[in-house]
Amino acid sequence: MMAEHNILNVDVQNADRIMTIVWEDGHRRSFHSIWLRDNCRCSYCRHPNGQKLASINELPADIRVISVVCENDGLHLQFSPDNHSAQFDSAWLRNFSESNTLPQKTLWDVEWFSMAEISRDYAHIRTGGAALAEWLELVVRYGVAVLHDVPAEKEMVCNIVEWFGYVRETNYGRLFEVKSIADPNNLAYTNMPLSVHTDNPYRDPPPGLQLFHCLQNTIGGGDSIVVDGFMAAKILAEENGRHYDKLARHAVPFRFCDSVADLRSRLPVLDIAPDGVMRAVNFNSRAIQAFDIPFDEQPEYYAAYRHFFEILQRPKLNLRFKMEVGDLSIVDNRRILHGRVGFESGGGRHLQGCYADSDALLSTWRMLRSVGKQ
Amino acid sequence: MMAEHNILNVDVQNADRIMTIVWEDGHRRSFHSIWLRDNCRCSYCRHPNGQKLASINELPADIRVISVVCENDGLHLQFSPDNHSAQFDSAWLRNFSESNTLPQKTLWDVEWFSMAEISRDYAHIRTGGAALAEWLELVVRYGVAVLHDVPAEKEMVCNIVEWFGYVRETNYGRLFEVKSIADPNNLAYTNMPLSVHTDNPYRDPPPGLQLFHCLQNTIGGGDSIVVDGFMAAKILAEENGRHYDKLARHAVPFRFCDSVADLRSRLPVLDIAPDGVMRAVNFNSRAIQAFDIPFDEQPEYYAAYRHFFEILQRPKLNLRFKMEVGDLSIVDNRRILHGRVGFESGGGRHLQGCYADSDALLSTWRMLRSVGKQ
Repeated sequence: MMAEHNILNVDVQNADRIMTIVWEDGHRRSFHSIWLRDNCRCSYCRHPNGQKLASINELPADIRVISVVCENDGLHLQFSPDNHSAQFDSAWLRNFSESNTLPQKTLWDVEWFSMAEISRDYAHIRTGGAALAEWLELVVRYGVAVLHDVPAEKEMVCNIVEWFGYVRETNYGRLFEVKSIADPNNLAYTNMPLSVHTDNPYRDPPPGLQLFHCLQNTIGGGDSIVVDGFMAAKILAEENGRHYDKLARHAVPFRFCDSVADLRSRLPVLDIAPDGVMRAVNFNSRAIQAFDIPFDEQPEYYAAYRHFFEILQRPKLNLRFKMEVGDLSIVDNRRILHGRVGFESGGGRHLQGCYADSDALLSTWRMLRSVGKQ
Repeated sequence: MMAEHNILNVDVQNADRIMTIVWEDGHRRSFHSIWLRDNCRCSYCRHPNGQKLASINELPADIRVISVVCENDGLHLQFSPDNHSAQFDSAWLRNFSESNTLPQKTLWDVEWFSMAEISRDYAHIRTGGAALAEWLELVVRYGVAVLHDVPAEKEMVCNIVEWFGYVRETNYGRLFEVKSIADPNNLAYTNMPLSVHTDNPYRDPPPGLQLFHCLQNTIGGGDSIVVDGFMAAKILAEENGRHYDKLARHAVPFRFCDSVADLRSRLPVLDIAPDGVMRAVNFNSRAIQAFDIPFDEQPEYYAAYRHFFEILQRPKLNLRFKMEVGDLSIVDNRRILHGRVGFESGGGRHLQGCYADSDALLSTWRMLRSVGKQ
């Protein structure tokens, strides 16, 4: 038993409403009685599958801890007025929040980050298990990963998604073809350059993951570009906090419209959770519509928007690579912006793309890792 | 030509940086030069498909309007220093924000709202067109709708989704069965009552739409309950603004874990956009995990959470109905909470459910309406 799991002392204070634990290594943590009662892990309070059975209304608001017994690496508590008994594991009380935290993202720029960092071979990853987990972790951590030498066969991009999750079908199909075509409904299907952007911010919800698989690339140009939008936002905050606030405070309209769909949304360019955690970047110069933010705020909003665009173009943030036949890229579309330089007209470049969501990728990554730990 | 489209006067002020239009009916609106230049609709600035071609860096920051010519129901503008010419439709300048606004939601309680309001017949809706648009509009406006007499055949629930969008496949499958089963991985598959909840808040993103189709129901109990979570949040704000703020300010952890998946998220119970617009309610007593919000804030957070739960239980907010064989329900899972009362054990109740997303539903609704207007 590690000292950090051994409880040195338990003290119940404040008319039994607060309990403070001191561990042998000096660590101290206080708990409200209502929190302890709410998190009781007995079979009455929690189904064997881990779901909570008691709703908040079943817990007396005036709950108190009236008895504490320390036992080995746990605690027995008795509550009043409901007379409920609960047992807690000391390590869980100390570390419960670990299983709540989402994995850490490592923000990057090209001064230290490179394609080698995030590229793996299809033949290796397809074995699954730890190799697949390690590739998925690149997406979790950096928001982008590449596979080389994926067979240049149609629909392989969907097959890869099925390794870890589910294809998100949209009006573009289960998969979509990216090549220069006549009368395109979307600039992605021309040979024009595409500045870095979030895909489909006009959807609710926007796609969590975007994948491309290269089936043909014999033309000049067409290099792919990816940018860490969270790094760009961090730089914006450092350079001008007011600009960062502007892009976080106002929702702006996005839209895509063709003969079969009319998709509209309102999202802030920087989607920041109330606790300051960055949730998403929504940036798409083509799909954005006329700002309808208050007249007096527009000049500074435009300055902020221009500033953010300028940061996104900085070579330091632009990771460039050419998609060779068989290459497959995956990006976290809520964080990473992607684009391409223009290419020669007349075909010779053919990608297949599809969308998926992050929850299944993260779940698969966790499951593969926990198997690896057993 | 309506007077509201006729321009009476145009005035360029503030060193040519602001232009003010006065319409014949007295309506007045001011525009920044940068906004006008940014929203030029010529073929150089905008692809025929409606996507914007010019990025913000291509527009001079010191842009000014140096010439205005009023012509019929439009304006010709000339900008400096880029010498760009732009033509604007007067009606567009007046009403551009209309196409940006998302449809209005009508919050409801059972004092005026009833099942009859939102129930339609399958035979009618399956004709598509205006009938389908009208049914979809129920989901847009009220967040919930029902179809009666859907053939009690397996997978019909997915077929209905395909009328307007795409099934969201998850680890529960493309569709999932809801009946009492042995060793369930989820309480939904027991015969226990389920208090009203958001489905799958542990996903990123949570499902936008949730559908059930009743294939069998011969047992007592098992009534369905739906609650307008946005109405509940509005009541919370009215009764205690601090409680509303608490639930909006702190993200809380959600989790689902079984032998094949480990899904985790952090979301606020009330997801409010920075401009105060309600985006979503995330409430699930079973999937919520131990709060890790700051110790000092926990007592008031618990009070707020308890208060919100209590509002959700009020009979005034609980729309109850029994799913008969052939009934299909659809809810906006970002707004409406759903649940059920307990039912007798031993089978006899069988629903099939699936998930989908709101963007396609809204798009289909818009497309069907615009056809109807032609």
